[in-house]
Amino acid sequence: MAIEFGIDEEVAGIARRTAAFVRETVLPVEEECHGDVHAGPEPLRRGLQEAARAAGVFAPHVAPRWGGLGLDLRGQAVVFEAAGYALLGPLALNCAAPDEGNMHLLDAVGTDEQKARFLAPLAAGEARLCFAMTEPSPGAGADPRALATTAVRVPGGWRINGRKWFISGADGAAFTICMARTAGEPGDPGGATMFLIEAGNPGMKVVRNIGTLDRALFAGHAELLFEDCEVTDEAVLGEVDEGFAYAQVRLGPARLTHCMRWLGVARRAQDIALDRASQRRAFGGTLSELGMVQQQLADSEIDIETGRAVLWRACWELDQGRRGAQVTSIAKTFVSEAVGRVVDRAVQICGALGISEDAPLAALYREVRPFRVYDGPSETHRWAIAKRAVRAARERGGAL
Amino acid sequence: MAIEFGIDEEVAGIARRTAAFVRETVLPVEEECHGDVHAGPEPLRRGLQEAARAAGVFAPHVAPRWGGLGLDLRGQAVVFEAAGYALLGPLALNCAAPDEGNMHLLDAVGTDEQKARFLAPLAAGEARLCFAMTEPSPGAGADPRALATTAVRVPGGWRINGRKWFISGADGAAFTICMARTAGEPGDPGGATMFLIEAGNPGMKVVRNIGTLDRALFAGHAELLFEDCEVTDEAVLGEVDEGFAYAQVRLGPARLTHCMRWLGVARRAQDIALDRASQRRAFGGTLSELGMVQQQLADSEIDIETGRAVLWRACWELDQGRRGAQVTSIAKTFVSEAVGRVVDRAVQICGALGISEDAPLAALYREVRPFRVYDGPSETHRWAIAKRAVRAARERGGAL
Amino acid sequence: MAIEFGIDEEVAGIARRTAAFVRETVLPVEEECHGDVHAGPEPLRRGLQEAARAAGVFAPHVAPRWGGLGLDLRGQAVVFEAAGYALLGPLALNCAAPDEGNMHLLDAVGTDEQKARFLAPLAAGEARLCFAMTEPSPGAGADPRALATTAVRVPGGWRINGRKWFISGADGAAFTICMARTAGEPGDPGGATMFLIEAGNPGMKVVRNIGTLDRALFAGHAELLFEDCEVTDEAVLGEVDEGFAYAQVRLGPARLTHCMRWLGVARRAQDIALDRASQRRAFGGTLSELGMVQQQLADSEIDIETGRAVLWRACWELDQGRRGAQVTSIAKTFVSEAVGRVVDRAVQICGALGISEDAPLAALYREVRPFRVYDGPSETHRWAIAKRAVRAARERGGAL
Amino acid sequence: MAIEFGIDEEVAGIARRTAAFVRETVLPVEEECHGDVHAGPEPLRRGLQEAARAAGVFAPHVAPRWGGLGLDLRGQAVVFEAAGYALLGPLALNCAAPDEGNMHLLDAVGTDEQKARFLAPLAAGEARLCFAMTEPSPGAGADPRALATTAVRVPGGWRINGRKWFISGADGAAFTICMARTAGEPGDPGGATMFLIEAGNPGMKVVRNIGTLDRALFAGHAELLFEDCEVTDEAVLGEVDEGFAYAQVRLGPARLTHCMRWLGVARRAQDIALDRASQRRAFGGTLSELGMVQQQLADSEIDIETGRAVLWRACWELDQGRRGAQVTSIAKTFVSEAVGRVVDRAVQICGALGISEDAPLAALYREVRPFRVYDGPSETHRWAIAKRAVRAARERGGAL
Repeated sequence: MAIEFGIDEEVAGIARRTAAFVRETVLPVEEECHGDVHAGPEPLRRGLQEAARAAGVFAPHVAPRWGGLGLDLRGQAVVFEAAGYALLGPLALNCAAPDEGNMHLLDAVGTDEQKARFLAPLAAGEARLCFAMTEPSPGAGADPRALATTAVRVPGGWRINGRKWFISGADGAAFTICMARTAGEPGDPGGATMFLIEAGNPGMKVVRNIGTLDRALFAGHAELLFEDCEVTDEAVLGEVDEGFAYAQVRLGPARLTHCMRWLGVARRAQDIALDRASQRRAFGGTLSELGMVQQQLADSEIDIETGRAVLWRACWELDQGRRGAQVTSIAKTFVSEAVGRVVDRAVQICGALGISEDAPLAALYREVRPFRVYDGPSETHRWAIAKRAVRAARERGGAL
Repeated sequence: MAIEFGIDEEVAGIARRTAAFVRETVLPVEEECHGDVHAGPEPLRRGLQEAARAAGVFAPHVAPRWGGLGLDLRGQAVVFEAAGYALLGPLALNCAAPDEGNMHLLDAVGTDEQKARFLAPLAAGEARLCFAMTEPSPGAGADPRALATTAVRVPGGWRINGRKWFISGADGAAFTICMARTAGEPGDPGGATMFLIEAGNPGMKVVRNIGTLDRALFAGHAELLFEDCEVTDEAVLGEVDEGFAYAQVRLGPARLTHCMRWLGVARRAQDIALDRASQRRAFGGTLSELGMVQQQLADSEIDIETGRAVLWRACWELDQGRRGAQVTSIAKTFVSEAVGRVVDRAVQICGALGISEDAPLAALYREVRPFRVYDGPSETHRWAIAKRAVRAARERGGAL
Repeated sequence: MAIEFGIDEEVAGIARRTAAFVRETVLPVEEECHGDVHAGPEPLRRGLQEAARAAGVFAPHVAPRWGGLGLDLRGQAVVFEAAGYALLGPLALNCAAPDEGNMHLLDAVGTDEQKARFLAPLAAGEARLCFAMTEPSPGAGADPRALATTAVRVPGGWRINGRKWFISGADGAAFTICMARTAGEPGDPGGATMFLIEAGNPGMKVVRNIGTLDRALFAGHAELLFEDCEVTDEAVLGEVDEGFAYAQVRLGPARLTHCMRWLGVARRAQDIALDRASQRRAFGGTLSELGMVQQQLADSEIDIETGRAVLWRACWELDQGRRGAQVTSIAKTFVSEAVGRVVDRAVQICGALGISEDAPLAALYREVRPFRVYDGPSETHRWAIAKRAVRAARERGGAL
Repeated sequence: MAIEFGIDEEVAGIARRTAAFVRETVLPVEEECHGDVHAGPEPLRRGLQEAARAAGVFAPHVAPRWGGLGLDLRGQAVVFEAAGYALLGPLALNCAAPDEGNMHLLDAVGTDEQKARFLAPLAAGEARLCFAMTEPSPGAGADPRALATTAVRVPGGWRINGRKWFISGADGAAFTICMARTAGEPGDPGGATMFLIEAGNPGMKVVRNIGTLDRALFAGHAELLFEDCEVTDEAVLGEVDEGFAYAQVRLGPARLTHCMRWLGVARRAQDIALDRASQRRAFGGTLSELGMVQQQLADSEIDIETGRAVLWRACWELDQGRRGAQVTSIAKTFVSEAVGRVVDRAVQICGALGISEDAPLAALYREVRPFRVYDGPSETHRWAIAKRAVRAARERGGAL
């Protein structure tokens, strides 16, 4: 037991290979499509994953039995950041949202049969899977208990009705994990169940893809309609009525992997800003000699280094088998906001170039904004952080 | 002489008509085209301006002799904010950038003949005009003295060579005001001259339109190439070598009119956030009952009200005939950042809806970011503000 | 009706005289006592006020019939800022808290007899008066409805019981306005009454003076105990049970006058920082040539100029006879925080000197912190601002 | 090699004992003297250190051969934070500034004889030692190269002349390490030498103690005058002209130990705020149920947790034998500002109580402000951080 920030040689090697792969292979692809893969296409994804496999960096988070490199969260932190340097890097490594989180969920909760049928192709990059929880107002959003989609018992199975939106990657997904209420009313803290539904089920329809600020989420964010969508009992993932608990199983690490990938984005934005500041001349010197530019560059270094440190701490806690709810919320809130600040400063330092599509910054700027909303908006996390801190204070008694 | 914040009845009337026109006529058009007029089309512009004329709100800033309503800057502040509630509102009133600033410049510096030839059709909305100052690195940008485009004497006129970019509205503009160096070297504080060039001059070419974060600037932002572009002596606007001084004539009020229009954007984003917060239910009540949402709503009210007050102060100073360089920089810096904060908070309050194209917030978010770069980035203004404050301190002697 | 920022000659003259008086007379006194008048002494106050009267700047806010200069709030804004340049300036002009607000309250609510007996000596600087509303937890604080002090009917008058604290200027005050509950329970929104109590009433006791961060409030902040404190019916100020409404009468303008005085503090801190930055050499030049120092200086200019503009707007609204609750809250929140930022930056720019008592900055730093708590903490104001904005949004219907 | 955040049992044990010792023994002493030990007295220090020794927590950072517990920086990070929970905790453990940093310096640079003579009594708490580097303007401050104090060769030794200020703990110190220029001119990057001077040297005089915002630095901050102060060659610490390099030896870890201690202050302020928020009732519930209070509590948890993570990272780097200049600057800048924010929020949450001396917050508020100035102001660190990042960017070549 000790405080250590070293990176073991195996992880460091994968990270180095990932960084090289990203620069040599992924960034050129990304530049060509301007990082816009909201409409796919599938061959682009297949090609990138093929190349990642060849480079020995495919599926770093997946257990070896499913074909991955088996890294724990700390190892993932190092490698995913390297992958995240390109918006499409995580897609190439098959560790992008939502698939990465879904693999974790299936591995943690699924039956052996479900794993074979759903996890195996997902881990291999042969299929994509979406996670259908969020609903349009007044349904489940920042407050998941508002869940309004229902699943009612029918002989041998369930019938699901409801509407979902912002379901990332739904268009073209082979399977959907749908969260539906099997007990209670919207607002109740329990009563949710997860269902595994295959594409082609006649009761499930992709209504449309929603236009959004971000563009780099493969297949975009869809609106789904469930109309008398019938599934058998085998479709239930885990136990009936335990869906909210499983969502936490998924969300804890998913928040951290989001942070890892986005830190890579921040690092790239900062690198671009550093290059620009070193080269662009104004007022008789380079931008990098101007105090206000130095302040922005320094603040971004501080944000990245500090965010990474607290993120690693959160990873360590989860790797110890703890739930780590408090540090996970802290890391997610801090990193999501820090990343936004870093990209914003890079845009400012690059000026006109920063807001043009001649540099990737405008795309990064659009891309990172949703991070403060996804996986619990900052406000929800702050509320939870404060509540836990107050509870802890009450338990320990007075301060003095 | 007194401190007054009343609005005279004539201005209030125009503002009310503008607000009604914007809601009834402009917003529906904007919704249809998602506020994207980077590629025109011209009939959309013509139609909106026709409707504005019919509504009695066309060209509020233009002198009556050129067909406008003749408002001073304080009057413009009230009316342009109302127009700015829609991204396309200023275009409809013919008071959008860059034309609005160009009218001011032509009126202040042009000869009678130049006014008849260039200002008259511009004021009437029959032609558009672009202002070609900014250059790609290492040319003129935040530091205008880096101006690299040259104009050299030829018999009876001048020959211009250089490259410009981020020239708003250049594509399809009937005329271009090109800033070129007629004396000195890049980095020198003087030696610039403005030239009026008609479209069709064979030495001037629109190379491309640059993709940018914003979309609501009619005809977008172009890259221009001047290759042995020849013009006669009549093309000179004002005096030779006085271009930097004229640029300030243009930029002082142009900064303020930018602020006016963007305050309208902020007000709209805040209204959307207020509506959402009043209606969206979560955690057992409406969002507007949650303290962290209230804080954001309050901060945005503070930003808008405070920004408007200091903007009005700057307008008053210029209306008194003063240069108002300090208060103009202060207003531009504060308002551009305040508007960014307001829109960012509105996005956050609206959550998934905020980052989707189902609401206009994602478009507003993209649109306002460049405001912190255009017309002098915040850093340049802060540098100038500090320099003036230090100089004033030196002049008054010690603090105590 | 128009937007004007001019200052009429009479007000400008008083402000000029005030500025000269403050520099020549008040600052030397302040330097000698380090701005610490928590323990008086009375002769210092009398001397300063005598000098202000001689300089023709005494009681600028007081109606001429009570011996003052009769300025409206806009005039006060200009003059009080000049007075506030010294911590003891407002005391010298007899426009410091709490007396200044108490004069306003007595003039607005008192009977002729009460005015003659209490207001006249207060306006003349012959007596001081304290306002006893705040109570220790769980009583009235940020939430005034928690009022716990009670006044019960006795023949011919009332009997008051309760404990107050943070009662500014109580020690040595000739009279106390005590807010007590005459109906309802703590938490109820009504039922408060104001009582005028003379020093020497055996039921009222100054328990102690509370040590605080600030030192420049004459006579400090006391804890008061009311034990069977009996008063006659003539002691009632205004109507029974209307105390909360009167408190608003007092607090609206009192918030603004606080802002005026504190803006003077901010201006002084910024002047000290400007001087220091102009003179202190480091890294091969003066501090004022360093970009990060320039940024701080510029941000403080922005804060002061912007805060003053919104403050003047609030003053104008109240001078029009409107309640101006929203703009008053906005001005108080913005200015109190802006002043804190300005002083903090000045401390930082001055470095070791800034945190030492060799310069007045350390004292200013201590002094301004409570401003974000006094007269409603920022949080309470933000809550009120948001609530009013939401209500207005509901009344106007949807945003689009 | 791995990423670990565990704390080994020995360190955890010392930290637990320290926490208990601080609460039971130190805080009562601190309450009695309001944390003000600017004027000593010596018996208070002796008593506290005696008690710490009895509790088994004395000198945790000192090598066992000098009587300490021999913790590395990571161990110190854990224990010093526990000590810092009380302002006087570090004094009790003999790990307060400046002595703690001086022990490190002497151990790293001193000769065996110097260690025996100066380090041994210092480590044992029998003597105090001050470090005289900072000079009044225009001498050494944020820019140490401005060093103006001179030491010139005399037969068998040196003669020192100059003025120092803000020399912490100088009053009553047994020895002084004086930094003087032995070569070059003010502004030159080299040429400084460190001298060990015993109290009583007739050429060295404590002119006065400087009043400052902070009060908890034992013996305060003095102004020193060196007038023809003669010392022998044995007084030279390390090599002649190498003083600036040694200052970095001292400052690197000294910055981190500052952060450790101040994190304890932040934790205490936050604990007080949590208690207050849990107990104080307003608006129909406890403060802790109000969103804006929750936001402040959450932000403080984020600041503390995040600051600790990056601080530990910096400690780890130095424990590996690296210089860690970049991460040390990052940790110092972030933690010093985070601590300031945490204490400021705690003051705000506690309202009137927060600014009164009835709670320790007002003292903590005064105490932490100088932390953003001491050991390099934030601006100097940001400048250095940016410069290093730019250099690294240039070395790696372009970003893409």
